[in-house]
This record gives sequence, C-alpha cells and structure tokens, in this order.
Amino acid sequence: MNDAPDIAATSKIQAVLRHIADTRQAAHGRLMDFLRIPSVSAQATHAHDCRAAADWAMRELAAIGFSTRLCETAGHKVVLAEHPGPGGDVPHLLYYGHYDVQPAEPLELWTSPPFDPVIVDGRNGPRIVARGAVDDKGQVCMWLEALRAWHEVAGGPPVRVTVILEGEEEVGSINLEGFLREHHETLAAADVAVVSDTGMWDIDTPAITTRLRGLVYVEVRLHAASRDLHSGLFGGSALNPINALTRILGDLHDAQGRVTLPGFYDEVETLSAEQAAQWDRLGFDEAAFLADIGLSAPAGETGVPALHRLWARPTADINGIWGGYQGMGAKTVIAAEAGAKLSFRLVARQDPQRILEIFTRWLQARTPPGARIETEVFGMAPGFEVSADSPWVKAARTVLGEEYGREAVLIGSGGSIPVVESFGRILGLDTLLMGFGLSDDQVHSPNEKFDVRCLDHGTNAHARFLAAISSGGRT
Amino acid sequence: MNDAPDIAATSKIQAVLRHIADTRQAAHGRLMDFLRIPSVSAQATHAHDCRAAADWAMRELAAIGFSTRLCETAGHKVVLAEHPGPGGDVPHLLYYGHYDVQPAEPLELWTSPPFDPVIVDGRNGPRIVARGAVDDKGQVCMWLEALRAWHEVAGGPPVRVTVILEGEEEVGSINLEGFLREHHETLAAADVAVVSDTGMWDIDTPAITTRLRGLVYVEVRLHAASRDLHSGLFGGSALNPINALTRILGDLHDAQGRVTLPGFYDEVETLSAEQAAQWDRLGFDEAAFLADIGLSAPAGETGVPALHRLWARPTADINGIWGGYQGMGAKTVIAAEAGAKLSFRLVARQDPQRILEIFTRWLQARTPPGARIETEVFGMAPGFEVSADSPWVKAARTVLGEEYGREAVLIGSGGSIPVVESFGRILGLDTLLMGFGLSDDQVHSPNEKFDVRCLDHGTNAHARFLAAISSGGRT
Repeated sequence: MNDAPDIAATSKIQAVLRHIADTRQAAHGRLMDFLRIPSVSAQATHAHDCRAAADWAMRELAAIGFSTRLCETAGHKVVLAEHPGPGGDVPHLLYYGHYDVQPAEPLELWTSPPFDPVIVDGRNGPRIVARGAVDDKGQVCMWLEALRAWHEVAGGPPVRVTVILEGEEEVGSINLEGFLREHHETLAAADVAVVSDTGMWDIDTPAITTRLRGLVYVEVRLHAASRDLHSGLFGGSALNPINALTRILGDLHDAQGRVTLPGFYDEVETLSAEQAAQWDRLGFDEAAFLADIGLSAPAGETGVPALHRLWARPTADINGIWGGYQGMGAKTVIAAEAGAKLSFRLVARQDPQRILEIFTRWLQARTPPGARIETEVFGMAPGFEVSADSPWVKAARTVLGEEYGREAVLIGSGGSIPVVESFGRILGLDTLLMGFGLSDDQVHSPNEKFDVRCLDHGTNAHARFLAAISSGGRT
Repeated sequence: MNDAPDIAATSKIQAVLRHIADTRQAAHGRLMDFLRIPSVSAQATHAHDCRAAADWAMRELAAIGFSTRLCETAGHKVVLAEHPGPGGDVPHLLYYGHYDVQPAEPLELWTSPPFDPVIVDGRNGPRIVARGAVDDKGQVCMWLEALRAWHEVAGGPPVRVTVILEGEEEVGSINLEGFLREHHETLAAADVAVVSDTGMWDIDTPAITTRLRGLVYVEVRLHAASRDLHSGLFGGSALNPINALTRILGDLHDAQGRVTLPGFYDEVETLSAEQAAQWDRLGFDEAAFLADIGLSAPAGETGVPALHRLWARPTADINGIWGGYQGMGAKTVIAAEAGAKLSFRLVARQDPQRILEIFTRWLQARTPPGARIETEVFGMAPGFEVSADSPWVKAARTVLGEEYGREAVLIGSGGSIPVVESFGRILGLDTLLMGFGLSDDQVHSPNEKFDVRCLDHGTNAHARFLAAISSGGRT
C-alpha cells in the first residue's frame, strides 16, 4: 500500500457510509432474522436449524454478488463464497465467521426467549438480546452489511473477497482443519484473514487483538501400588501417589509465581516499550476485574503488571486434579493412582513441543522410585502475535481511529482462538482480529447481548477498512 | 498377681485342655453353625440374620452358665452376658467380639458359598472357608469354647467374666459408644478388655498387639473465585485453587519423608531398645511386603526401619484430592475451589486435638491472599499402646509361649481399632489384643478362611490365659 489518498475510494466510502446509515433498519432486521434460527451446533435436535442458518447465509451472500458453495464436512456444512472484486491487482481478504451458536440453557435465566431477539435499553443505549447476538452472528453481520453496502453503492467490494462461515466453532471447529486443507488452493491465495469474534477495550475505545496465547494441555497420571491400600496398614511404607503428585506439582511455581520448568521463559520476548506504554495508559483496574469474580488479591508473577501477565506472559495452571476418595466423610485409603490435567498458556515464539518436552523431563526427574508417570496430550498450539507494523493492522488502526475519533489500541487476549492458529499453520495467513464485543456481553451465558452502538460502528469500520486497503493496491 | 504356681489351677488347666481336645469336633461344629447365619450388618435384607446370630450367641452363653441380656440400640442389638466366676477377689475380664460380618460380594469369586462353611486343605493343613471364619466368628468361638470347657470341667471360669458381642462392627460400631455409656457401671467394673480380632506374626509365632495408631482425619477445601473461570482469560491473574492446594500440601513432607508440621513429632517417644531388637529379630521383608502390592521401593521416613515406620511412627497421607475438570480430554478451566482429605496416623501420647490445631495453623499460614480455607474433621482418635509390663500382657505372653513352645512377640498395627480407643476413653480400660489371624486370611475378601491350627491353638491359649490370670488373684 502507499499512503497517497485515492480520491475515488474516498468519495465512494462516504457514499457507502451514507447508504449504511440510510438502510440501518433493514440491516438490523436481517440480523434479527439470522438470530431467530436456533443453530445450536452441539445439540442434534438443532441439526436442521444449523442447515437453515447456512442456507440463510448462502442467500444473503448470493444476493450481494457472491458465488456460493455449501461444502460438506463430517459435521455441519461450511459456507464458502467468493467475489472477484474489481479485478486487477487488489488485495484478497478471507473473511471468517461462524453461523452456529452455544446452547441457550439454562433457559429459565433468560429475561426473553433466546431465539426471539429483542432490542431493549441498556447502559450503552439499545442492545440486541439473543443467543448469538455478539457471538458470532452480530459480528458476522457487520462485515456482511459492509459488503452489501459496497455492492449496492459501487457494484461490489473494492477488493477480492473470500468468505468462510463454519457451523462448528462452538464445538471446537472439529472439521475445519480438514476443510482448510481441502480448499487450500482457494483459501491460501488470500492475503490475510479477517475475523470479528473478539472485543473492544471498552465502549469508546476500539481495539485490534494482536496477541493470543497458545496452549499445551496435558494429563498426568501417577501410578503407585497395584490396588488401593488401607492407609493404616500401609501408611509409612507404601508410596502414596497423591502425596507424590502434590509434591511434584506443588513445585511448578516459585515463591514469585514464576514457572520453575528449566528453560520455560527462554523464548519469551520482552514487550516493546511502546506496547508496554500503550497498555499502561489503558489504566486496567485489576482489583475491579478480580472483585467481579470474588477475588481480593491477584495471583501470577509478582512485579509484573496485570495486562502483561494476562496477555504477554506464559502461565501454568492445573485445570483438574483427582485421586483417592472424594465422597462424603472419611475413607482411610492410599490410592493406587492420582492424576491431574495441566495447561500451559504460551506466548508467540514459545514452541509447544519444546515446552511439553521440558515439562515431561521435569516430571520424570521428580517421580519417586517405584512410581510410574503416564502423560497424554490434549492440545498443542503456539501463541499468536501479529506485528503492529503489519499493513493490515495499520489500516485497521487508521479506520478505527476515524470511525471512533479515538486511537485504537492493540490488545492481547489470554485465551486461544484455534482457527487463527489453523490459518497460520495450514494457509500461511496472518489474521486481523478486529472485533466489537464488550466484556459485559454475556457470551455463552444467558441474556447474551450486543450493543447496537457497537454493531453500527463495527459495520462502518468494516466498510471503511475495505476502502482503506483497496486504495493502496495489493500488498 | 504373684508368680508362685497355684497347684489347683495347674491341674485344672490340664483337665480343661484335655476336655477341649476330646470335644474338638463338637466345637468345630458349633462354629460351623454360627458361620451358617449370614449376619451381614450392612445389608438390610440380612437384619433377621443378625438377630439370629445374636440369639445363637445368647443360647450358647446361657448354656455355659452366663446370665444374658439382648440390649437394644438404634441399630443391631448387643449381647451382654455376665458370669460371676468363683466369687472372691478374682480378676474381672471383659470379652469383646462381634457377631456381624462383612458383605460376601462379589459372590462369583468364592470357591464355595460364603455361608455354607467347608473345611478344605490349605498350606497350613485344614482351613475353614466362610464369610466370618476369622473375622470375627472364629476368633469369638475360641474364647467361647475356652469358657465352655472351664464350665464343663470346673463348673465355671476361674475369673469373673462379662461378654459383649456387638452386631455393628463392620459398619463402624456406630451405636457401641452409646451402649458403653449406658452400661458404664457394669462394664467399667472390669479390669481389662480382651479382644481376639487381630493376628499372629506368622503361623508359628504367636503375637500380642500392643500398639495401634490413632487418627486425625480432616477434609480441606480451598475456595478462590466465586465461579469457575476460563484459564485463558484469567490465567496469570486469578488465583488457581488447585495450584495453591498442591503447593501447600506438596510441602507436607520434607525430602527425608518426615512430616514438616512444626511440633508434629514432639510427643513421639523413641522405641525401647528391647522392643526395637525384638522387631528387628522378626526379619520383616519389606521388599516382599511391597512387591505383593506392586511396589518396588519403600516410602516414608528414610533411615527408619520398616516396622518402626508402620507401627511406631506417625504419618500424613492424602486420602483423596479433587478439583476442576476430571473428565475425558481437555477443559481449560480455573476451578472455583479444590479439596482434599488427609489423615494423620498417630502414635500413643500424640494428642489428636493438638495435631489438628498445628495442621490447621500451618494451613492458614500457607493460604494465599484472597483464598479461603475450610476444614471439616471426620475422625479423631489417639494412638494406643499397652505396656509390655502390664500383668495382662505378661500373662498372655507366658501362656502363648507355653502353647506354642515359642516366645510370643509384641507387635503393632498401623491401623486403628476404634473399639479399643472407646474402651480406654469411656470405660478407662486397657485392652489385651490376643489374636490368631494370619495375613493370608482374606479378611473382608472372597474366600475368607481361618486355619484350624490357629483356631485350636487359640482356644487352648484362651483356656490357659483364664488359668494364668486367676492364679494370682485380682491385680
């Protein structure tokens, strides 16, 4: 891209934004239609609703000039749609979203039926309340409506566009990797993936998520005696695997909250001064963040600022532990085995395979004589980081700044978005995470909502983004 | 007692032993009758069988001169029987046993029906195979037959005797304490309790159990956030209660396997050189003991001999632990709470209340800020130790030596026998634990057995014991 203004694009985007403003009611109505389809991917009784949601998206995309295909997978189908754009040397964007939603249960906690969307007043003005309002139907409709406006005003988007909408994001995207491999040629031809499934910093501060943490998830089982033993008759002679496992895992952190695995931090880069300063300016209130979940003190590495701990530092958490007697009252047993599930959240450049290896070696070295350690891996994904210097990030910051009149911040997320990892690994694509959710959106919970203000700004921002990246030609 | 031989008693015991030998078939037959009653206290369908077993014992005791009472409790009844003995200044023994048995399931693993006793050949000669053969009907019949022989030969036992046979030992003796309190006056008048529910060292080596370990059993729950959290979004900031609990409990032992609670060993006495030498002479094969349960290396305090660790040293064992996700695969959760059940095995003179207090203080001191610890106590019993100098122990050693032609050893047991603790606490009585079981008796398991050799020697030993303690008068 170059920074010279493209007069045609500039005038077009003003017309596109006007059109979006003029047709907002209809756009909201389309989202409400989409939300009325109870496309719960986890529940077999909703299989036909998932198909109906896919069909809805197929029709909407066809109506704005896309060629569409409904692609088979072992599970719910994937909508694949393509628009050639204006032709010539324009960028090629891969939009990703999902048409499936989480189960709505427990239904009795909803203030209105989850699949009968309503617009009600909230602290940020009107909000749409329904399952999927923000995750991900509302966010999908932002770029869908932006593409529609470009279609209706200018005959099509100013760039080449491929769309994939899957129906299994809420059940772990179990068939997406196969789909990406099968359509590798089409999809890998894109320049960047664009995903709106993340959040803003707050209602007034737009954000681009440039960091996600990776994951190593491993189960550990420590085997001792060949059967459960009486703790009176054997206590003091027979190895207790729960004693041993707590002794091992109790050493996973030092007194400063740092993970003790040798070499664990070797690949962790120091945050740039600029990024650190930007996060510091956000004025994150960790005490309030923790008070909301009933905690009065922070955990993790002492002396490290909260957002750094959450977004830019790796962690080790025991996600589950078990062994021996867990029922009511007393049972004087020495168990035959004990187990735990652990996850390491990783940052970019930490190699999950290496982390798994140093953990396994560390475990083996601490296993007492006569015990046997067994491990099983349930997840391996590297961390994600897209450079602040990426042209896509730069363009997104510019348009978000224009739309909000306020600088967009580059934030992280402590969690993982597996599809982002798949785009990098399988398609060789970076992902731009430009999302408009808020922390109070009740994602996956009863009374999920999406603020209309977020929806409208997000639609504008997506329309502006298309203009901004088209003006510089193919990167 | 004095050590001068009592000629009348000496000649009587020879007659009693001859009578026992002459009537052995009938005695075995009575035990077989007792074993045919499926008095499983845990199973409501066997309630009438428990009553039948109590009635059987009532009849047998009445037939040998006892006045009997069937005492109500909230559960199965207690048989209380009394014999005044010859009158005068004679010792007063309280025999304790139980007429209930463990459930026989799994029935398919029995080689003969559990309540159809058979005598089959084993490696130590004939053995009786049936549920309850050794625990406790066979051991009860030893002293019952000894009392019968004294009755038939000499018109009654040479001492005053009280008998209690309860029907709830296998369900935790839940109503026994109430019974002991209710009949305190009668029972506390005894000089010592005699219990045959323990074992020999081996088939040739008789033993008196002079030590039992006590118990503090406590559940610990560590509460952190007010709900389960996503480990990606909160990991590095929110306290993980499983991390915290393993960190705390992982410090319970030092590298030498010693319990780290401050003051934990303060009240633990060093074993006398004589007792230590006796145990060393037993040549306990810890490697074989552990190999039997699939372990290749000992645990516990390094540098402490195995029997000392099992019988004379306190321990700390985590009997159960739980928290977070325990299902298949991965769930990236930070749990709201985690818990564990722990037991401390105590030796005599360690005060359970003090141990509980130092543990609770130690826990509180290690609980991280923002977490909350909750404890619940499920068991508190002091350790038991009867002195080798006790006249009852001395008399028992003498008669066992005579019966077996081999010195009886004083052994310990790592477990607890709650009734022994109750006799001490409620009645102020010491207990003589003279038992004739073997480690291969399959107690509580399918094919429970009692070697006839043990049964016959045990009956003789009980008959001799009555003579021995009567010869010295009331202690």
